[in-house]
Amino acid sequence: MPTDTTQLRRARVPLNGVDTPTLFGTLDVVKSQPELARFQFRARNRWTSGTLSETTIDTFSGAGGEHIHKTTFALQADHPAVLVGEDRAPLPIEYLLHALATCITGGIANIAAARGVTLHEVESRIEGDINLLGIFGMSKDVRNGYEGIRASFSIKGDASPEKMQEIVEQSRARSAVFDVLTNGVPVSMSVNAG
Amino acid sequence: MPTDTTQLRRARVPLNGVDTPTLFGTLDVVKSQPELARFQFRARNRWTSGTLSETTIDTFSGAGGEHIHKTTFALQADHPAVLVGEDRAPLPIEYLLHALATCITGGIANIAAARGVTLHEVESRIEGDINLLGIFGMSKDVRNGYEGIRASFSIKGDASPEKMQEIVEQSRARSAVFDVLTNGVPVSMSVNAG
Repeated sequence: MPTDTTQLRRARVPLNGVDTPTLFGTLDVVKSQPELARFQFRARNRWTSGTLSETTIDTFSGAGGEHIHKTTFALQADHPAVLVGEDRAPLPIEYLLHALATCITGGIANIAAARGVTLHEVESRIEGDINLLGIFGMSKDVRNGYEGIRASFSIKGDASPEKMQEIVEQSRARSAVFDVLTNGVPVSMSVNAG
Repeated sequence: MPTDTTQLRRARVPLNGVDTPTLFGTLDVVKSQPELARFQFRARNRWTSGTLSETTIDTFSGAGGEHIHKTTFALQADHPAVLVGEDRAPLPIEYLLHALATCITGGIANIAAARGVTLHEVESRIEGDINLLGIFGMSKDVRNGYEGIRASFSIKGDASPEKMQEIVEQSRARSAVFDVLTNGVPVSMSVNAG
């Protein structure tokens, strides 16, 4: 298996559905023009009724320009009946678990391809524990959000278990969602109620 | 407008598509049995190809038992072409913006209903800035995740701008997703590469 950057660069064949040559080409371009690495992602949301609302995701900026997704993505969220909603879509906090699983899994595919490792299977289960006494305002000692999240990954491929484990660990170490969830991010909010 | 808890309890009519009587009934039950407030949410994910993977959300526990969503929710995430994906679904980190918007918006509907305020419109725009030099491993000074998120809410209803603003602020103050994103959460991870 390649172990240093020079050798990695030789693994220029598409693998795991990842266009590895383009991946390395992109990294080379960003290395010479670091300002291309600045991206902005966006979501617009509109309340529907009750706890149901719909988000539209279509544009983002990055790599020095504006981009439009191939499809305009429409996402909904709702509360289940036991939380006085109509269960028409996943809960907002369930989407956090989805974001974590997909961020690390997408990274695994890229990193495995870059290292010349063929993936056979990647599965994960994510669980988050939350005590709603916080949200309900019934305890000042209980936070609003998850108290803890557990992620368990199962991975199979054509490299040794140690190398497969390293790929998952490298994906975690470079995951944007893992970073945001574990370290937090400043969120500023403005309200127009005019 | 009602201003204290006793008065709030009189506003027992459905409003904004929120079943306010059931909402207050639920809060009363939890107040007398706080252990019912413990919930666990779950997501299972399976890699598809490239940066595409699919999440299944179907069960959760809470209110003293196991629950199954009315629908089995299937969600995907992918990377866009400029990030060497095929743009078949939103990015994992775009889902974080969706989660934030929908959590605060659902809360606004509940809180407005509890306060007897009829909502006409709630819209929001969320933006997140990220410098991918972190993920690409090209700078140790750049984090992997968003550097900052900005949320702007626009709300219309039958109360004064001050009261509408208070409703948004109360929803933010009780939002599970806002708490997780701003304060972070411990995430433990295990890997089975056998």
